[in-house]
Amino acid sequence: MANIKDLAKHAGVSVTTVSRVLNHHPYVNEEKKERVLASMEELNYERNINAVHLSTGKTNVIGVVVPFVNHPYFSTLLQGISDEALKRNHQLMLFQTNYEVETELKALHMLKMKQMDGLIFCSRACGWEVLQDHKRYGPIALCENVQDSFISSVYINHFEAFRHALNYLIQCNHSKIGYCIGRSTGSNSKNRIQAYNETMNELGETIRDDWIFTNSYTLEDGINIAKSILIKEERPSALLVSSDQVAAGIYMECERNGYKIPDDLAIVGFDNDAMASYLNLSTIELPLVQMGQQLLKVVLKGQYGLRKEMPFTLIERQSV
Amino acid sequence: MANIKDLAKHAGVSVTTVSRVLNHHPYVNEEKKERVLASMEELNYERNINAVHLSTGKTNVIGVVVPFVNHPYFSTLLQGISDEALKRNHQLMLFQTNYEVETELKALHMLKMKQMDGLIFCSRACGWEVLQDHKRYGPIALCENVQDSFISSVYINHFEAFRHALNYLIQCNHSKIGYCIGRSTGSNSKNRIQAYNETMNELGETIRDDWIFTNSYTLEDGINIAKSILIKEERPSALLVSSDQVAAGIYMECERNGYKIPDDLAIVGFDNDAMASYLNLSTIELPLVQMGQQLLKVVLKGQYGLRKEMPFTLIERQSV
Repeated sequence: MANIKDLAKHAGVSVTTVSRVLNHHPYVNEEKKERVLASMEELNYERNINAVHLSTGKTNVIGVVVPFVNHPYFSTLLQGISDEALKRNHQLMLFQTNYEVETELKALHMLKMKQMDGLIFCSRACGWEVLQDHKRYGPIALCENVQDSFISSVYINHFEAFRHALNYLIQCNHSKIGYCIGRSTGSNSKNRIQAYNETMNELGETIRDDWIFTNSYTLEDGINIAKSILIKEERPSALLVSSDQVAAGIYMECERNGYKIPDDLAIVGFDNDAMASYLNLSTIELPLVQMGQQLLKVVLKGQYGLRKEMPFTLIERQSV
Repeated sequence: MANIKDLAKHAGVSVTTVSRVLNHHPYVNEEKKERVLASMEELNYERNINAVHLSTGKTNVIGVVVPFVNHPYFSTLLQGISDEALKRNHQLMLFQTNYEVETELKALHMLKMKQMDGLIFCSRACGWEVLQDHKRYGPIALCENVQDSFISSVYINHFEAFRHALNYLIQCNHSKIGYCIGRSTGSNSKNRIQAYNETMNELGETIRDDWIFTNSYTLEDGINIAKSILIKEERPSALLVSSDQVAAGIYMECERNGYKIPDDLAIVGFDNDAMASYLNLSTIELPLVQMGQQLLKVVLKGQYGLRKEMPFTLIERQSV
């Protein structure tokens, strides 16, 4: 394959001139430029892009860490990230981690090795100290509320969102309220749990562990939660459900067994996905596509420690 | 940042020795190796991985082209691809195309530029001639049945799958059958249309354009299809629906309006996703996770023109 020296020789110009043409340098003699372009054509010159990265230090690649690709919450975020990457002529390196720290470390290592210009964590399993160890290697953005002079953050205030939904239920005369979340260890979940505990304490309600469901992500998880609730002697009158997929499963399983929503069980979901809209579920809408777009923008700015809070909206429908 | 020469000087060995240590060459004096490793530590030496790619010609990156990230069919394929990539220590470069040829060309260009070791098309908008122009640059795998000495193919026989589902409906005394598919122009869709047309001709049934629905992908699309069917003067007695999401939308909208499945309309979906299982929809199960895994394996083999047909299975439930 022809290299830059072959090209210079063929075109009868210096290597510097060829380099200037390749890098769109403004001050190149037009006639020489034409000769270089003609030689590129003739010698079928292909630029080795890895060599270009080596010289520019830019890859135009952004890494994206998601626990699960095949879940509406994460695939909607990913849709927003992908839309924006396309618009800004960047490529995405995808890491599906199943919440395994080892895979997250691979992504961080690639940032360190300059194989990407920045890294987005849609959710993470690794500890804060791991991020601290890597933050100097390039811009990192998280979907959680952090204050750090290096790490950026595009987030929803999940404390306020949970509190908002709880107050809505309380206004509708509910006090026996349970909740369903994903992991209990994630930073967003911790904020939700805190909002719940504080609210229940203010109400003077006991916190009942059997009305709390963790590791709930899918429609099937929702079906199983409904099954376990329906056989309880004492049931909550309302459930706050951190994913509309789970809320839809609960809704459908209750209705199938002759229990009426909201009379027998009120439900507030999160996300406002297609199922929530179809089943007329009250839900907290999260602007996930826009959040994905913001994540990419923040990382591309190449600045450190940017913060962007995304709004949430309560959508009142028929399930409360 | 320290480079390989600094390292050699600091360790008091030749550049060749350092290079051997970095590349895990078997014949290196143990004592020299220790000195190089110690110097790497001391000088905080970071290998520039783009330089490594340049010398090995391998990137450990596989490109993946999908029209939509946020759709269960494609995100399930992507889950399988990601699982396998993780297992085999490869990274994925993701291209969400919205079926725009320009973005597919970017992916193909990166293959040409050696920025990835292979490329998977979960679906494509570009013409066959575009693939022909790029196939020599690295292994390409498609999710459609092609016979080519370069391009690999991991596919479902959609002609047979559609035919199988049609015969099932015919055995259940249906002859007024319509269908819903995604694009009408894709190679898989063409096979489905051919299966439908041949079967209808054999039955002596007229093909009615108003019973054929294209561009149907989502639950909402299914709801709209049901709405338009329910107001027709003459309705099909059965629908073959190439996506369970669409089938679920049709099912739910019919039931909401008091129409009974299967008495008023029989439905056969495709995929066997969570909604199909919950709604008791008869469906053709497609092994999408396994198909994703195979796609990655085929591309990693680095051989050209491999072919792997994936099986489909009719799951008979309550919607026929």
